[in-house]
Amino acid sequence: MTGLSCVRGQESAGFVTSNGASTPTYTVHKGMGLVSTAFPPEAALKLRHGNLGICHTRYSTTGNSELQNCQPFVVDTLHGKIAVAHNGELVNAQALRKKVMRHGVGLSTSSDSELITQLLALTPPMEGLDNPDWVARIKNLMTETPTSYSLLMMFKDVIYAVRDPYGNRPLCIGRVVPVSKLHSSGSEEGDTEGWVVSSESCSFQSIGARYYREVLPGEIVQISKHGIKSLSIVPRPEGDLPAFCIFEYVYFARPDSIFEGQMVYTVRQRCGRQLAIEAPTNADVVSTVPESATPAALGYAQQLGLPYIEVLCKNRYVGRTFIQPNTRLRQLGVAKKFGALTDNFAGKRVVIIDDSIVRGNTISPIIKLLKEAGATEVHIRVASPPIKFPCYMGINIPTKEELIANKPEFQDIAGYIGADSVQYLTVEGLLLAVQGGIGSKDKDEMISNKSISRVGHCTACLTGKYPVELEW
Amino acid sequence: MTGLSCVRGQESAGFVTSNGASTPTYTVHKGMGLVSTAFPPEAALKLRHGNLGICHTRYSTTGNSELQNCQPFVVDTLHGKIAVAHNGELVNAQALRKKVMRHGVGLSTSSDSELITQLLALTPPMEGLDNPDWVARIKNLMTETPTSYSLLMMFKDVIYAVRDPYGNRPLCIGRVVPVSKLHSSGSEEGDTEGWVVSSESCSFQSIGARYYREVLPGEIVQISKHGIKSLSIVPRPEGDLPAFCIFEYVYFARPDSIFEGQMVYTVRQRCGRQLAIEAPTNADVVSTVPESATPAALGYAQQLGLPYIEVLCKNRYVGRTFIQPNTRLRQLGVAKKFGALTDNFAGKRVVIIDDSIVRGNTISPIIKLLKEAGATEVHIRVASPPIKFPCYMGINIPTKEELIANKPEFQDIAGYIGADSVQYLTVEGLLLAVQGGIGSKDKDEMISNKSISRVGHCTACLTGKYPVELEW
Amino acid sequence: MTGLSCVRGQESAGFVTSNGASTPTYTVHKGMGLVSTAFPPEAALKLRHGNLGICHTRYSTTGNSELQNCQPFVVDTLHGKIAVAHNGELVNAQALRKKVMRHGVGLSTSSDSELITQLLALTPPMEGLDNPDWVARIKNLMTETPTSYSLLMMFKDVIYAVRDPYGNRPLCIGRVVPVSKLHSSGSEEGDTEGWVVSSESCSFQSIGARYYREVLPGEIVQISKHGIKSLSIVPRPEGDLPAFCIFEYVYFARPDSIFEGQMVYTVRQRCGRQLAIEAPTNADVVSTVPESATPAALGYAQQLGLPYIEVLCKNRYVGRTFIQPNTRLRQLGVAKKFGALTDNFAGKRVVIIDDSIVRGNTISPIIKLLKEAGATEVHIRVASPPIKFPCYMGINIPTKEELIANKPEFQDIAGYIGADSVQYLTVEGLLLAVQGGIGSKDKDEMISNKSISRVGHCTACLTGKYPVELEW
Amino acid sequence: MTGLSCVRGQESAGFVTSNGASTPTYTVHKGMGLVSTAFPPEAALKLRHGNLGICHTRYSTTGNSELQNCQPFVVDTLHGKIAVAHNGELVNAQALRKKVMRHGVGLSTSSDSELITQLLALTPPMEGLDNPDWVARIKNLMTETPTSYSLLMMFKDVIYAVRDPYGNRPLCIGRVVPVSKLHSSGSEEGDTEGWVVSSESCSFQSIGARYYREVLPGEIVQISKHGIKSLSIVPRPEGDLPAFCIFEYVYFARPDSIFEGQMVYTVRQRCGRQLAIEAPTNADVVSTVPESATPAALGYAQQLGLPYIEVLCKNRYVGRTFIQPNTRLRQLGVAKKFGALTDNFAGKRVVIIDDSIVRGNTISPIIKLLKEAGATEVHIRVASPPIKFPCYMGINIPTKEELIANKPEFQDIAGYIGADSVQYLTVEGLLLAVQGGIGSKDKDEMISNKSISRVGHCTACLTGKYPVELEW
Repeated sequence: MTGLSCVRGQESAGFVTSNGASTPTYTVHKGMGLVSTAFPPEAALKLRHGNLGICHTRYSTTGNSELQNCQPFVVDTLHGKIAVAHNGELVNAQALRKKVMRHGVGLSTSSDSELITQLLALTPPMEGLDNPDWVARIKNLMTETPTSYSLLMMFKDVIYAVRDPYGNRPLCIGRVVPVSKLHSSGSEEGDTEGWVVSSESCSFQSIGARYYREVLPGEIVQISKHGIKSLSIVPRPEGDLPAFCIFEYVYFARPDSIFEGQMVYTVRQRCGRQLAIEAPTNADVVSTVPESATPAALGYAQQLGLPYIEVLCKNRYVGRTFIQPNTRLRQLGVAKKFGALTDNFAGKRVVIIDDSIVRGNTISPIIKLLKEAGATEVHIRVASPPIKFPCYMGINIPTKEELIANKPEFQDIAGYIGADSVQYLTVEGLLLAVQGGIGSKDKDEMISNKSISRVGHCTACLTGKYPVELEW
Repeated sequence: MTGLSCVRGQESAGFVTSNGASTPTYTVHKGMGLVSTAFPPEAALKLRHGNLGICHTRYSTTGNSELQNCQPFVVDTLHGKIAVAHNGELVNAQALRKKVMRHGVGLSTSSDSELITQLLALTPPMEGLDNPDWVARIKNLMTETPTSYSLLMMFKDVIYAVRDPYGNRPLCIGRVVPVSKLHSSGSEEGDTEGWVVSSESCSFQSIGARYYREVLPGEIVQISKHGIKSLSIVPRPEGDLPAFCIFEYVYFARPDSIFEGQMVYTVRQRCGRQLAIEAPTNADVVSTVPESATPAALGYAQQLGLPYIEVLCKNRYVGRTFIQPNTRLRQLGVAKKFGALTDNFAGKRVVIIDDSIVRGNTISPIIKLLKEAGATEVHIRVASPPIKFPCYMGINIPTKEELIANKPEFQDIAGYIGADSVQYLTVEGLLLAVQGGIGSKDKDEMISNKSISRVGHCTACLTGKYPVELEW
Repeated sequence: MTGLSCVRGQESAGFVTSNGASTPTYTVHKGMGLVSTAFPPEAALKLRHGNLGICHTRYSTTGNSELQNCQPFVVDTLHGKIAVAHNGELVNAQALRKKVMRHGVGLSTSSDSELITQLLALTPPMEGLDNPDWVARIKNLMTETPTSYSLLMMFKDVIYAVRDPYGNRPLCIGRVVPVSKLHSSGSEEGDTEGWVVSSESCSFQSIGARYYREVLPGEIVQISKHGIKSLSIVPRPEGDLPAFCIFEYVYFARPDSIFEGQMVYTVRQRCGRQLAIEAPTNADVVSTVPESATPAALGYAQQLGLPYIEVLCKNRYVGRTFIQPNTRLRQLGVAKKFGALTDNFAGKRVVIIDDSIVRGNTISPIIKLLKEAGATEVHIRVASPPIKFPCYMGINIPTKEELIANKPEFQDIAGYIGADSVQYLTVEGLLLAVQGGIGSKDKDEMISNKSISRVGHCTACLTGKYPVELEW
Repeated sequence: MTGLSCVRGQESAGFVTSNGASTPTYTVHKGMGLVSTAFPPEAALKLRHGNLGICHTRYSTTGNSELQNCQPFVVDTLHGKIAVAHNGELVNAQALRKKVMRHGVGLSTSSDSELITQLLALTPPMEGLDNPDWVARIKNLMTETPTSYSLLMMFKDVIYAVRDPYGNRPLCIGRVVPVSKLHSSGSEEGDTEGWVVSSESCSFQSIGARYYREVLPGEIVQISKHGIKSLSIVPRPEGDLPAFCIFEYVYFARPDSIFEGQMVYTVRQRCGRQLAIEAPTNADVVSTVPESATPAALGYAQQLGLPYIEVLCKNRYVGRTFIQPNTRLRQLGVAKKFGALTDNFAGKRVVIIDDSIVRGNTISPIIKLLKEAGATEVHIRVASPPIKFPCYMGINIPTKEELIANKPEFQDIAGYIGADSVQYLTVEGLLLAVQGGIGSKDKDEMISNKSISRVGHCTACLTGKYPVELEW
């Protein structure tokens, strides 16, 4: 196996493998749902048909949830088939669609990924028919559209891993280590070496690969049986900083992933410490809503020297809410999902750390539940700033009107959700935590890539400052 | 409703409707399987979203059986979306693919129908951007590829129904009559008038439409809220005759469909009569294998004055062959599908009329079954000539090697299948029956379109004479 | 394999096999739907686990359509497990339930079959614990309930096949012939000899068995590895005739089944001839609604010397009526299921033979369809008498109020359904046809069991005369 | 709603409701799988059909996983239908089956629950037909079988909640509080009062009920529209203590459930503290395998003053292990389920708290994973004693041979699983923690039922001392 990448997402999944021959055979499978549903066992067997391949899991932003939007896109060109998997959202998609259609191409989906594929297929004047220069075409693509995309393109026996010049979406490289080396258990049939590319490094461990490095903003990395090779770095307009999505740290990524040389869990813990500095609470115990805000809660508790406890346990089998014979059960709401661990907090003042408050209707019933079960005070501390602006670069954030931070109720958010007090982390505090300056007791906690600059993050959803001008 | 067509096929089905607005909304649904599976009730409800539409049911010839090959194809062009449904197989598909890809278009399927759609999308020099001349583009398509295709193309509020210059695949027009007129039962909510187009006229009755006329070879018919209008007839090269597929009469079409002004059932009955003239049998009773050869068997029996009887009854619930604990049950084979009506033929000489013998392994166990049940002789008469050549124009016929007529066993076909004698209809006899000259007692049986010429049929699978040169 | 029986029905199916050991292992599988759905391949494989077994397909009359009502019923008794499959309906079920429950048994379903099983399990005083006398228990059951039931009971390595004293439901025995003998093709692995029991003999052919004989009214036949053995015939009260259900001949059974030594198809043909004698028509052509009345139609046509033609062809893929955007399509109704073969009857007087008219709402739209397509007259002749009374013995007939023959409209049934005339076969004519006296040109058409008496049939649904007094 | 109980289990689920009329209508639904699968929305709607009911979710011990074993069992008796739901396993089931069958009852399943139902249906001599004394019958049942069962029995408008004399399985009562009182939000349509019974009190919160009290060992509680009423307490043989299953505290129950007046979470935390006293570790950080041992780990950390950290994050979408192209991926095993939070423990000595080690093959790869990710030492502390004996009273424990504590490898369990040391809680320590004597800083943590005796627990799986003699 030379390269395989699964971008995040639960809506649909697909893969394309190539046997790497000069007239290659591609094996394609696509399905709706999580990977486990989309790739039933007979489909997974097809993965054996190649020694390189690309894979995609879709998390839709604006496009429809239909199989035809499922990636990777494979098209036949004059030079043979190319396959493309894409994470992100093109800021100038509408203008590019017009341009492609003006050339006479009919577009069969509303997907940016098909658009990218057709842009790559269009023959620019600079090359002859026999010798397609895919790298030149990818560079050309990067001049046509600045952001946001992380891209994998496969052609015969080569995969190109590409990150847009602003580095808005993550992409990193892992090295597949033979199991015999991992476990010193002798060589085995089926053991293998190779390279993998993924949006998140957390996926490497589960296939026995080790984090190697990030693809840099604007970089084109070639992966083949000869190894990996950095071919080019397309620069940004002078003066522009990178714009890596800060929401990956706050909420989106898995805590064991590594971005810019640091583990997401550690950043979230620093957010908690920073939050404790900015917004301390006079309380008895610190807790969280299971389970994404646990690192921030532990950081908050450590910084203030308060005990960390559990207040809720999850009802494992709640599944969908299947039974609603009357308004009574609808009102019970969140009580069906969580059980209160009453003994741990009855008669105490509780501070709950949450990672973000988007609409405000999740936290409210939890506060009610805790108070009914005996908490004397419930304070909310949020380990990120209020979200106020939509994202046009790949994160599915509610419209401006739906965001609680833009509603009149935000003036008295504590009253609205029933808390005794509510405080947020500041944008400056978040940047400090992300960039390692504050809340970080130990500079050595950065694993590798020490020289990586952590300057330049997209905070558009918090500040409204978009990294490039938006075209519509 | 202005226009809706369902081409034949059981593999997949799809529809696209338009609300006919100047910036129209298209509603699309596609699914695998028969229409009843592919269009579950919630999908069928979507059909209400438009007042014109096209539909397709796929019967695959060479392409893969996957949802992405499912028609109609819808693509966005500079002028708006077009939707295309297609029946047939382009004889010069490979050359056309190269041409389209040379222009820089990536093709995402191996389907001829996507190829046609992209050919229509490509802007020829003759028109401005604001005013697409679809009729000119369709004419241009007809000069690029001579056959075989029947086509529906929808754009905003217009549908174009197109038949290739050789008229190889059928296409006919029906008029939707208000139920109030059909049943003289007064006007009803939801009652409607309009036009429909279909490969086979048999589909009209089931939606309350009446057969109106055929689309002629090379004709482009426009269907809109203003009615139907013949726009053009693209001619064939001088001297070339039409080449309507004779296999539609022999086997493929439903018996109540009308082609060239005559009912398929009647043609099959004439084939039986002509077969009786060419190959009479000294037998006691005439029968058939249920149920496609029944008209030929009735015609054969009438011509010879022999009694027509039933020899088999179908096992209604046989479904798939689910249970095969041992070789024993496998050997029983056809006995699981049919029950012998022993009393009707025990001690008698039976002549069985079949419509065609393709591989020879279906009829053989039936003959064995009849003999074991008491038939003293079993003669086979086939109401069509032996099939010897592959079809490259849309009918899924086995390869030359698989066809029984090309195997050594054909020399003693009767011995091979266990019959007392086997005889086929001649090609001349078939043409006579199709063209109404022989076996036709009554010239008045032709329903309408009396002036239609019935000269010019494709007999390539029987004779090896293809209507146009094949490019590969 | 020693014995296996599948009673008719499409609602659910189950089987139980035994390995025949003295402490036997039973293998059980049950499922909803047709056999092909209820027994998926992995279930069918379980059939290998035994060398004798019983099977059941359920056609519900009054009980609920649930898996727990699915037969065979298996219960553990002091002597080991017994399995019971049952076709029919006990006329005194309510009284028997009370009796069993008074003994302290809880009944877990409303099914007669569970009741029979518990009645067999109850220890009568006459036997010791070590030596259960199942035949005595079955005889005891037959004194407790006179009708209607055909029964299979399995215990260890023996199956008992039982028919009630009135012989109301059918049951017959077939002999499994080795394939090597059938096809003279040499011995094969998996080839076998044995015995099978079934409601209808038509099922024998599909497993390579041959009809052997009927189980007689009141008979208990033992089947084991030692062959079949008639153990006893429980008599009816003096003067009572057998009461075999005449509706099996008229409609319910498959035409290739044999009852009382004659093929059902032949009886239906005789019904058609007798109908022609009783109710001739001045018409040009004879036809039928596909396809159960075809033998009667052929008999009617032969008797009157009129030509038999086809008027309708079936729309093979209609499946469920999936799409009903408006009242218009609902009104089209039957036109979705059939295509009119116009050429065959336009301008002619048509007589349609039907096997029965239950509610009258199926035939009406067909008559309308034929007239619209050009038939000048449409006459209906029904090859059975009007159904006027409910069945309490296993046939699912609508309530008295729903039957068209009990409605005021029946006075002008021709006008009600839109026919030019309607006539029915008389009860006397039906009995004559069933008993071979009339319409039967050739006495030799009876295959075997020549000595079988054909006197004594249940005509309760036609005459209201039930064979035994009904208890409620 | 008067009473509704869902016993734990994921294998199948069923419910029966009664409308409470004197001739009541029962509504029954059963299905395989979790409640969310077994009760699709159309089934859940049926719950409206009654105002009392019983429900069951099955967790199989020895019986087959088939729908027919699904509870509640409903049987029709002379007095009307009774419905029974049962949690537990009868120690003398075989002898009771023989007794019931000797009376002539056929048993259709191998389930103890059917056996209980038929035992209740059998009429003892002491009562007349018109007046069934169900309480006498239940008392009689309790003399026939000492343990283990918690039982709900419904008859017309009454439910009896029963716990066996040894109190082996839990059962408790909750009070349904009107939502208007819970939320002081005014009265609502559909709001209600009533009583519920459940194995675990954690289920009460999710339907808006509050914990009321336990059913006592041997107690029969009647629930009806008149409220709850304790009818009787059947005593144990003199000198016998109760034998409540200690494994409910250790592993089986949800942490927010209350048994014997204390929250399970609190007991587990005490187990952790007691473990720290018995088996302290010289380590840097304390953690756990998510997530059932978290309370014990927090207790252990608090007792020793060590920091509690997270070492693993769960891969949320792992589902079934769908893809195994080679031995390589199989070897990766646990790495697919968890991601290592490397920064938190690299270079540190880690002590992992687990709740139990049953087979030893789960913890081993986790230790390997932690060491590969940089832990310098990994110590295992188990918050319960080794499991050495099978359970015959309702808990599905592997056979003696499969239990790691009975294998030779147990002599060097640390070496076997790759840990630096392994230590277990003692039986005495566990009893101390369960009975509140040790590790309990604060006697006031017991919520209610202060007077409840916590003497008498079944420790058979740990000590081999079964509460009653086992009959086989």
